Amino acid sequence: MNFGTVAILGPGLIGGSLALALAEHDLVDKLVIYARSPHALDAIRTAGVDAELTGNPSEAVRDADVVILCVPIEAMAALVHECRDALKPTALVTDVGSVKGSVDRELAPLLDDRALWIGSHPMAGSEQAGFAAARADLFEGAAVIVTPTRHTPKKVEQRAEKFWQTLGARVTAWSPEKHDQIVARISHLPHLIAAALVNHLGPEPSILPELAGGGFRDTTRIASGSPELWTEIVLANREAIIENLKWFEMELGALRGRIENNKKTGLLNFLQSAHDVRSKMIEINPLFKKRP
Amino acid sequence: MNFGTVAILGPGLIGGSLALALAEHDLVDKLVIYARSPHALDAIRTAGVDAELTGNPSEAVRDADVVILCVPIEAMAALVHECRDALKPTALVTDVGSVKGSVDRELAPLLDDRALWIGSHPMAGSEQAGFAAARADLFEGAAVIVTPTRHTPKKVEQRAEKFWQTLGARVTAWSPEKHDQIVARISHLPHLIAAALVNHLGPEPSILPELAGGGFRDTTRIASGSPELWTEIVLANREAIIENLKWFEMELGALRGRIENNKKTGLLNFLQSAHDVRSKMIEINPLFKKRP
Repeated sequence: MNFGTVAILGPGLIGGSLALALAEHDLVDKLVIYARSPHALDAIRTAGVDAELTGNPSEAVRDADVVILCVPIEAMAALVHECRDALKPTALVTDVGSVKGSVDRELAPLLDDRALWIGSHPMAGSEQAGFAAARADLFEGAAVIVTPTRHTPKKVEQRAEKFWQTLGARVTAWSPEKHDQIVARISHLPHLIAAALVNHLGPEPSILPELAGGGFRDTTRIASGSPELWTEIVLANREAIIENLKWFEMELGALRGRIENNKKTGLLNFLQSAHDVRSKMIEINPLFKKRP
Repeated sequence: MNFGTVAILGPGLIGGSLALALAEHDLVDKLVIYARSPHALDAIRTAGVDAELTGNPSEAVRDADVVILCVPIEAMAALVHECRDALKPTALVTDVGSVKGSVDRELAPLLDDRALWIGSHPMAGSEQAGFAAARADLFEGAAVIVTPTRHTPKKVEQRAEKFWQTLGARVTAWSPEKHDQIVARISHLPHLIAAALVNHLGPEPSILPELAGGGFRDTTRIASGSPELWTEIVLANREAIIENLKWFEMELGALRGRIENNKKTGLLNFLQSAHDVRSKMIEINPLFKKRP
């Protein structure tokens, strides 16, 4: 498999991991990496990644057959605006944002008739950020959602699927709206809840952090994610998140009712159900088999 | 350091790890292990632990200088009732239950004038259970709370503290009530929340478990804990848990309000605060430094 010339715009954790994976598996004729900051480009130069580095996005995409937008969600539209005139009309353009509805609404009109656009979301983040945390195997066994709309040609969807599969990912196609609903449930809500559990410790003396055990550590790991990045994600997917929060608050209220009324069987069923779903996950989901 | 004869009643994850740790560090003259089931005793025999094994609790405690109750909370009173006549009056008796108020209320009167009682809670569980998951280093760097009351002689408290410290634990002393309040916050509430997040996935086709990423895996890891064990724990610490759930529901409502009203700074502060508390934990808490 060879993807020709691939341009990665924004070499953070995801973009950097993409660069490492593409280089390691020899999947490109040429790799071009764009970063706005010279400092970021220096880090990649130092790491010895075999790529052309540039601070000019138009230069980065000029010969590209595949362009991957790996900058924060709120920076994407401006970046595409800046470089779209340089795109080849046959270029596949995709992104790695955690929210798809708002990204698609912004980018699709900008790229219409300029290149072949489809959104992607590799669910392979980490609480760490930046190129320093990048790993060539980040996508192996990870889930990637591609988000075609009714305007997306089937061939574009297939090219995007092939791209991610070649990196070892398990690919699913959903509409941007369905993606956002489901990701609110399996990623955004858990992130907010993890942060809420940490904040729930309250302003006690330092004894509480010292006592928290391995359970608390793991349950709240994702709360160490970038506050800025997650503020953008949450606001970009506001509606689905609000709906999920409401629903979750009701579920906690019902759980509390079982405990208040000493409903032993009800409580046991609640815990058993979670236990069983998780056992199923461990069985079918490759990510649940490896340790973090 | 030598603890003389030590009796472990109930060689599950915690009791088994205690046995392995005491044997490995050569801290006892004699180790005696009691289990009700011959099957459990066989497992320990097969593992080659240097200990006397018995299915009779009175026999187990007869010569013991230290007795550690490692059976489920709801089985403790009956077990103590069964063997208390055989206890040496100088024996230190402690337990490893996750709830301390109800355990102390049950056991203190049974052991009064029979032996030297104080509750303990090593916060070193795991979602795995049973002797098969036991590890000699389970207590290294783990937090252990000992729970003296106004009836506990200072010397008894010190003996218990010394015991756990020798196994590598960081020991804190709190009243049973204070323990239960704080543990509701850092252990019991997170457990229920993790289970609620799994159940929140709802009865979708199997695609959802397949898509859940490493974040979801870690946030919900503890939901794989034993449903029976956790039902007992939650009901034993009902009042503190109900209070914490109410409080947490209100916190989620306030968070939702910030998102509904597009309060970017408020949301950022919420996530930043969680991020910062967690950074502090990583700095000061040895358990946060190692991977699970």
